[in-house]
Amino acid sequence: MENGDLLIPDRPGPGLDVNEAAVRAHPPKGKWHVTEATYDILGIGNAIVDVVARADDGFLSRHAMQKGAMRLIDAEAADALYAAMPPGLESSGGSVANSCAVAAALGAQVAYIGKVADDQLGAVFRHDINAIGVHFPTDPLAGGAPTARCLILVTPDGQRTMNTYLGACTTLDVGDVHPHLVGLASVTYLEGYLFDPPAAQAAFHKAADAAHAANRRVALSLSDAFCVNRHRAAFRKLVAGQVDILFANEVEIASLYEQDRFEAAAELARADVGLAVLTRSEAGSLILRGDETVTIAAVPARILDTTGAGDAYAAGFLTGLTAGKSLAACGRMGSIAAAEVISHYGARPEADLQTLIAAAGLS
Amino acid sequence: MENGDLLIPDRPGPGLDVNEAAVRAHPPKGKWHVTEATYDILGIGNAIVDVVARADDGFLSRHAMQKGAMRLIDAEAADALYAAMPPGLESSGGSVANSCAVAAALGAQVAYIGKVADDQLGAVFRHDINAIGVHFPTDPLAGGAPTARCLILVTPDGQRTMNTYLGACTTLDVGDVHPHLVGLASVTYLEGYLFDPPAAQAAFHKAADAAHAANRRVALSLSDAFCVNRHRAAFRKLVAGQVDILFANEVEIASLYEQDRFEAAAELARADVGLAVLTRSEAGSLILRGDETVTIAAVPARILDTTGAGDAYAAGFLTGLTAGKSLAACGRMGSIAAAEVISHYGARPEADLQTLIAAAGLS
Repeated sequence: MENGDLLIPDRPGPGLDVNEAAVRAHPPKGKWHVTEATYDILGIGNAIVDVVARADDGFLSRHAMQKGAMRLIDAEAADALYAAMPPGLESSGGSVANSCAVAAALGAQVAYIGKVADDQLGAVFRHDINAIGVHFPTDPLAGGAPTARCLILVTPDGQRTMNTYLGACTTLDVGDVHPHLVGLASVTYLEGYLFDPPAAQAAFHKAADAAHAANRRVALSLSDAFCVNRHRAAFRKLVAGQVDILFANEVEIASLYEQDRFEAAAELARADVGLAVLTRSEAGSLILRGDETVTIAAVPARILDTTGAGDAYAAGFLTGLTAGKSLAACGRMGSIAAAEVISHYGARPEADLQTLIAAAGLS
Repeated sequence: MENGDLLIPDRPGPGLDVNEAAVRAHPPKGKWHVTEATYDILGIGNAIVDVVARADDGFLSRHAMQKGAMRLIDAEAADALYAAMPPGLESSGGSVANSCAVAAALGAQVAYIGKVADDQLGAVFRHDINAIGVHFPTDPLAGGAPTARCLILVTPDGQRTMNTYLGACTTLDVGDVHPHLVGLASVTYLEGYLFDPPAAQAAFHKAADAAHAANRRVALSLSDAFCVNRHRAAFRKLVAGQVDILFANEVEIASLYEQDRFEAAAELARADVGLAVLTRSEAGSLILRGDETVTIAAVPARILDTTGAGDAYAAGFLTGLTAGKSLAACGRMGSIAAAEVISHYGARPEADLQTLIAAAGLS
């Protein structure tokens, strides 16, 4: 199969309210590759620096946190929580930015759009994503809010609970999305969290339209069940109308379709998008494409910090997909990347991922 | 033994050029405890944020680094090296600041003097040292150089090679050393690296004089063999004249006394200071006090990153010493703390050190 030739069927049926221009831009059949892509993946997301500290369940309770979830906090709450937190480790984060870093580490050609401030943490974010080989053209915000940070508490069970101050991310808007860049990428990968900052939804739609206008594919991560709750109608419309590849975990997909049973939600996803990739933690993952169903086992790992597990899975999957691998191979690449990331603190890879993939016979 | 009652003999003989006021302030015999101390340890050092990245030996060669050493770089060189470095993990560092953090984690009462800037990395440093329970009263530098950073490359053998941009640390001076605070601490622990910033040597001597005037003890870490080379005469004078407890590794003590053989250097240290504590990596450590010699085995550890090993050892040792433990117990506490710190990236403790100490029967 030619590189970049992703066999994803068109979205089945007109269904919900669909952007007509985007639909017209779609190729009539499963193949959409037209001109060779410069980038395998273009990620768009909240550019965030993580502050990771260990805490016990009592700390989460005292600060009214929902374990495993992400909540948005303002600058004042961020300062207060930081003051109460144990010593931390700082590292670049952001869900789709993490995916971009992992994909680049796996050898994919990757670009990223996200908004940092012109400050020290912004410089850290820029350094790290550049250093791993990701093209990051977004201008920093000068004179406004500081670079976003996510205060992450990791409990002894390895679960991470996140408190995000969006800072400069709230200023990402359509001006930061250059259609030419979008057109150069096989897959434009959008972060569900981007529905939170007010101006980003418009940027989201602009990116999706530009991708389809260039006969490229759009992928979306639902990010977080609470995020889905906050924006369910918009997500439903986007998924049915503009998304070719959907990433979600069990809780997120159940929330999107308001289903109690995972299986029912999965079938609705199958009907809505060309390719649905559903992760289930230690139960592995499920890949749905038209009538096909592929089940992938999780790769066993010593769980130290689950931060970035889903991001790494998506990165492995998309790297495989844009390299023309089978769905089963894509899923295994995702599982291997996720297992590496949860085995240490922080969401960016530490081990040599290409060696791990090669050892599994997936190069 | 009463808490804070450290049995260290007076420096043997007048020897070299000694600060007369400090000598007069010394108690005539090994006991110096007069009024109860508020702090077990007051650390004074360069307040630094570490940026830790993995690199191979080729990277060190290409950037003309001496493996395992610390070198000083200016702002321009720091920017250039950072741009060339792989993605990093940021965490609070600084040799004596690391010791203070470890000692606080072990349950000691600790204060710290060091200079950060009024910027994001300075806020990270302040948060982390406060969060672990260290009193940190030094005002930040406003409007000058940024907070110091140390770019640390960790090679596959676990060795760390450090490149320090001193930034705000160069402004630490006598005004930051409050004699009253020094007088409240059983041991004032000085960082050899503080001889590098120009104004800090005076602060160093002021602190040592204030400690002895209050009948307290002065400890010194030689920090780095290259640092000793840069300031050998000043170190020799300080060690013989004002230091009660000396920490050094094999290479540093050999450099201080310009000896090829460790044993010869160790005997010169024994003659110079009341208590010499010499670390030898996996060969353990040697403690010399007057005629006594105590040999301590290293605690086996999986070495991932040796950054902070010596700092953690000194912290464990001083925590034991100020709690009135035997020299053998102090050395074992040091070895346990060092083993914990080298088993992960970063110089600050991750495991519960008090539990490790209790498990070894040293609580």
